[in-house]
Amino acid sequence: MDGWHETEIRVRYAETDKMGIVHHSNYLIWFEAGRSDLCRGRGFSYKEMEENDNALMVVAESYVRYKSPAYYEDILNVRTRVAEIRSRSIRFIYEVFRPADDTLVAEGETLHLVTDQSRKVRHIPEIYRSRLTAADVESAEAFPANQAPS
Amino acid sequence: MDGWHETEIRVRYAETDKMGIVHHSNYLIWFEAGRSDLCRGRGFSYKEMEENDNALMVVAESYVRYKSPAYYEDILNVRTRVAEIRSRSIRFIYEVFRPADDTLVAEGETLHLVTDQSRKVRHIPEIYRSRLTAADVESAEAFPANQAPS
Amino acid sequence: MDGWHETEIRVRYAETDKMGIVHHSNYLIWFEAGRSDLCRGRGFSYKEMEENDNALMVVAESYVRYKSPAYYEDILNVRTRVAEIRSRSIRFIYEVFRPADDTLVAEGETLHLVTDQSRKVRHIPEIYRSRLTAADVESAEAFPANQAPS
Amino acid sequence: MDGWHETEIRVRYAETDKMGIVHHSNYLIWFEAGRSDLCRGRGFSYKEMEENDNALMVVAESYVRYKSPAYYEDILNVRTRVAEIRSRSIRFIYEVFRPADDTLVAEGETLHLVTDQSRKVRHIPEIYRSRLTAADVESAEAFPANQAPS
Repeated sequence: MDGWHETEIRVRYAETDKMGIVHHSNYLIWFEAGRSDLCRGRGFSYKEMEENDNALMVVAESYVRYKSPAYYEDILNVRTRVAEIRSRSIRFIYEVFRPADDTLVAEGETLHLVTDQSRKVRHIPEIYRSRLTAADVESAEAFPANQAPS
Repeated sequence: MDGWHETEIRVRYAETDKMGIVHHSNYLIWFEAGRSDLCRGRGFSYKEMEENDNALMVVAESYVRYKSPAYYEDILNVRTRVAEIRSRSIRFIYEVFRPADDTLVAEGETLHLVTDQSRKVRHIPEIYRSRLTAADVESAEAFPANQAPS
Repeated sequence: MDGWHETEIRVRYAETDKMGIVHHSNYLIWFEAGRSDLCRGRGFSYKEMEENDNALMVVAESYVRYKSPAYYEDILNVRTRVAEIRSRSIRFIYEVFRPADDTLVAEGETLHLVTDQSRKVRHIPEIYRSRLTAADVESAEAFPANQAPS
Repeated sequence: MDGWHETEIRVRYAETDKMGIVHHSNYLIWFEAGRSDLCRGRGFSYKEMEENDNALMVVAESYVRYKSPAYYEDILNVRTRVAEIRSRSIRFIYEVFRPADDTLVAEGETLHLVTDQSRKVRHIPEIYRSRLTAADVESAEAFPANQAPS
């Protein structure tokens, strides 16, 4: 799996629009579900990180490329991966895949700043950093800047 | 207007579903927009009530009757009214009306408990109570129970 | 289970609001997910019923009683049951339950009219009616309870 | 205004999340409201384009940069502009601005393919193309490719 974490999603009726397909705003919500699930897969809860350790992952940027429509009742795999982790920011990448017909439905990424409850940028606590930085995750700061993953 | 407050809503594409009509969950969101707007019309902000005066109107019950479908781009009037106000609860009623074809799209009601931030039921602060209780609003406690609005 | 169908839901971050709890509109979306899942449990897909057999279950009424707040990352069981089935309408009832602390979070019901794509009320096709009418489901019309088609 | 179209949005309670700010997925919904409104400002309805002229603007890519949080009850201006129009695609750019404190809350863009109801890419009908291409809108095809807006 190379650092990818998989989360299964079943498309809800409410997630469709009058075009008969999933409304494009829902992919950001699924990416978020994928992030939460990745954290649990790494042994911690984002809820605790936020509520107990005063470290929030505020979304700074989002990008989605919609490749193929998804439909009501589709079972989708949201694949999530830590693409880059810096002292005060994290970048996740995503793929939304439909196994039934082997189709890549969408892909995207989100960039997050780590802040405290008062929204001041802070260092990500070491315990979370180390758990998010698995062997297969490249840590930007282990390399000279010009070799860091963009 | 007899205590009714009107809020104009334009149906968004994201609010439709694959049936081609507005998804039924959105009416609760519009009712809420109507409540916020009614508060502003009575001279206060629900945001202040919640953040400055530690009084939250937690939803305890909701009921919606869907009479006729609404469509993308429809302009709708959400009509909101305080139906009953007690020391620790408030009941609002709503009508969603489409002027273009004189159609009642939906109607409903919500019951709210007044609580503090720790979710303990409390008295509604007098300043908000008096503003919500306009001349045309019947206050349940000003009457014998058997004459109170149901 | 006496006709109750269970669907597991994990609360998403996007489903919370500034009160720190699940926004009350999401329960209608979860009820809907419960209905879809109940249909699959009875051997058919609501998608097929709608797209292939021209029979839509349009929501006519919804009622929710919010008993206790739900929080981000909660695992909830949405319990769904056919409460009543008539020739042209179906009533479902729901309970949202949190196993972790044995708490009933919410309960509610929805009433649906069966229509065709042009929104004209029609009879529910017999194949779906019989599958929705299990032994433990009371059929308001044709049969004594003990003769209801399983 | 240089081709920018303004749409006023009032932040709804349901659009906030447990961080106390607007959930980031809502910006895509507001961008969409901005597009619909821009179309109306140019003399046509996107609804008609879709339903009467069999031309859909399917979202192919979205990008949002979140600059500053938005809060419940904020009044925001969604500024929308056609950034580029080609024979089979349109790119819109957006700014979400809060006048009360002169703050740029977010900015972004969406790329759309023009398709028919069966999702086959097609030319944008000339009547819509000409209305979207106002004097202040640069038409990519009026210029040599290397001078076209990216």
